[in-house]
Amino acid sequence: MANLRIPGPTPCPEDVLSAVAQQMINHRGPEFKDLITRIHARLQQVFQTRNDVLILTASGTGAMEASIVNTLSPGDPVLCISIGEFGERFIQIAEAYGLQVVKLSFPYGHPADPEEVRKALKANPQVKAVCVTHNETSTGVTNDLQAIAQVVKEADKLLIVDAISSLGCIPLPVDAWGCDVVATASQKGFMVPPGLAFVSVSPRAWEAYKSARCPRYYLDFAKHKAYYERGQTPWTPAVSIFYGLDVSLGHMLRQGMENIFAHHARIGALTREGARALGLSLLVKDERYASNTVTAIKVPEGIDGRRLEATLRERFGVVVAGGQGPLAGKIIRIGHMGYVREADIQETLEALGKALTLLGYRLPAKAPTS
Amino acid sequence: MANLRIPGPTPCPEDVLSAVAQQMINHRGPEFKDLITRIHARLQQVFQTRNDVLILTASGTGAMEASIVNTLSPGDPVLCISIGEFGERFIQIAEAYGLQVVKLSFPYGHPADPEEVRKALKANPQVKAVCVTHNETSTGVTNDLQAIAQVVKEADKLLIVDAISSLGCIPLPVDAWGCDVVATASQKGFMVPPGLAFVSVSPRAWEAYKSARCPRYYLDFAKHKAYYERGQTPWTPAVSIFYGLDVSLGHMLRQGMENIFAHHARIGALTREGARALGLSLLVKDERYASNTVTAIKVPEGIDGRRLEATLRERFGVVVAGGQGPLAGKIIRIGHMGYVREADIQETLEALGKALTLLGYRLPAKAPTS
Repeated sequence: MANLRIPGPTPCPEDVLSAVAQQMINHRGPEFKDLITRIHARLQQVFQTRNDVLILTASGTGAMEASIVNTLSPGDPVLCISIGEFGERFIQIAEAYGLQVVKLSFPYGHPADPEEVRKALKANPQVKAVCVTHNETSTGVTNDLQAIAQVVKEADKLLIVDAISSLGCIPLPVDAWGCDVVATASQKGFMVPPGLAFVSVSPRAWEAYKSARCPRYYLDFAKHKAYYERGQTPWTPAVSIFYGLDVSLGHMLRQGMENIFAHHARIGALTREGARALGLSLLVKDERYASNTVTAIKVPEGIDGRRLEATLRERFGVVVAGGQGPLAGKIIRIGHMGYVREADIQETLEALGKALTLLGYRLPAKAPTS
Repeated sequence: MANLRIPGPTPCPEDVLSAVAQQMINHRGPEFKDLITRIHARLQQVFQTRNDVLILTASGTGAMEASIVNTLSPGDPVLCISIGEFGERFIQIAEAYGLQVVKLSFPYGHPADPEEVRKALKANPQVKAVCVTHNETSTGVTNDLQAIAQVVKEADKLLIVDAISSLGCIPLPVDAWGCDVVATASQKGFMVPPGLAFVSVSPRAWEAYKSARCPRYYLDFAKHKAYYERGQTPWTPAVSIFYGLDVSLGHMLRQGMENIFAHHARIGALTREGARALGLSLLVKDERYASNTVTAIKVPEGIDGRRLEATLRERFGVVVAGGQGPLAGKIIRIGHMGYVREADIQETLEALGKALTLLGYRLPAKAPTS
């Protein structure tokens, strides 16, 4: 069995996988109604919200698109904050729907500066909504969402958050921070296979829904809410993933969200310390913004990032992710979210040291695996 | 274990479910590339096409929406043929995207008349595309798609087909009949849990794609094709359902499509004969258009359809579907697609006779279960 260390899909616990293998049921019958009702209540706890949490049969990108098309109209000015590939995705979606995008980009590896957000909102008072990535999977940076949210709320704008690789791992109290629409997916912190995405929708977002004119059907929020009220989804749901989620939410709430957050903080620190001990540089310079779900490590000068990835996989059974966009070949990314133990990270770091050595890198004298 | 006799999700074979429970892999790695490549080639065989077959993480409705938004533009005139709830769905999607819909509706329980389609196309020469349901799940009617396709091709229009409850069960040679876009989903004839949808796209549909201006992102055909070419999907796919599909496609092609079609024809006839033997009326009068994947049976006068459904479920462990839209409470629908044996249908009919008796219905003297 490989040590799957990509930032999602993450490994799933055995009992989650067993649950996923259960036989089909009627998605319009009483068993499914019980299942979705039970899941909804616990999703609200994980989101720390009283808002509706809609469950879509889609990837996280589907949930990002849903967040925009259900709250905005073609021509609407929207501020998109980008610190990496997933910030760019919000821009691409908004542009695909003819929104007027005001872009606020920060260099890859850095967080968004809340002061710059404040200035951008002042300079563009017509902006209706702000789209922001909580945790940027492509660079391993966690934005200071609380500070950004405060700026957005002070300016009285709608706040749309991509929390795909953070929710359930890194603190994100949706109601306390005033996030209007928060999108995430099953295959990250939830330790469940991909196939479902979750979106929380605040009363203010429902208000925006009323006048939003972007076309939509499959991703329409109101259809999902109306069907949820009878214990169903409007379209046939990915039933198997619901089964897995039911088990996984039980694990999460028994462990307790605070303990899960602390576990991820420990695992994140362990990964970064381990990389530094191998003499490697992290893409994120400022430890305050280092992600506790994914770490981006610079590939040392003279080593081919794609060969490093292949060596880790083929020789050591450790599967990491490469860089995306402008970072392709230049970094490797280690995922450490959801179902992950310290031993998984230690094994990964040890394999990394050995793989680098095979490729001609000289470990520092004091490196643990040298 | 219940006898799940709804028109999808259908029961899945045990080895398909075991496959679904496999651990996650990297969806950007070599294992997934092998998986999607193997699946794509066999999907083409089941679709009887050389066209691209795109695999979306979505329900069938997502694939219907994708079929429209990737080939048409707001304001485009489109002919939507409706013989039931799923024909109406095409109309709703087309209207949501601002298309100019020409509706051609036939009474529930009847098929579309190809001559009327010819007249409608003559009367509306500006129409760009025709949307049609192959097998109408809400009424148990199979359209004469071959005849309709011929009319559409003679008029030189794009043909968009909802084959969600037919493909893989009822003959639909996509290339031979000239269907440009054909949408279906994993949880029907494919005997796999819901979560994936498949859409075939002809060269002519790709030509239409170039000028199609409906907004789209998650469902964008070109993104799916570009990623398929590197053995990936653009967004994280429902990996578990791919695992199940891999096993199920093996079963289907070993059995042979001709044998599968013959099996469904036998099972469909058995269901209809059994219902008639209980003295019941079928919604579909003309046997030539009776669906071999789902049978709609009229609930006898004086009996509450919803109570009949509940009695079948609670007393006999047989789960059937009720009527939708104007047929709610008036019919029950028995699904018999995918993984279904004669014994499952016999058990269903026996339970139906007993449940009706409990509710005060008098079986005919010669009824098998009287």
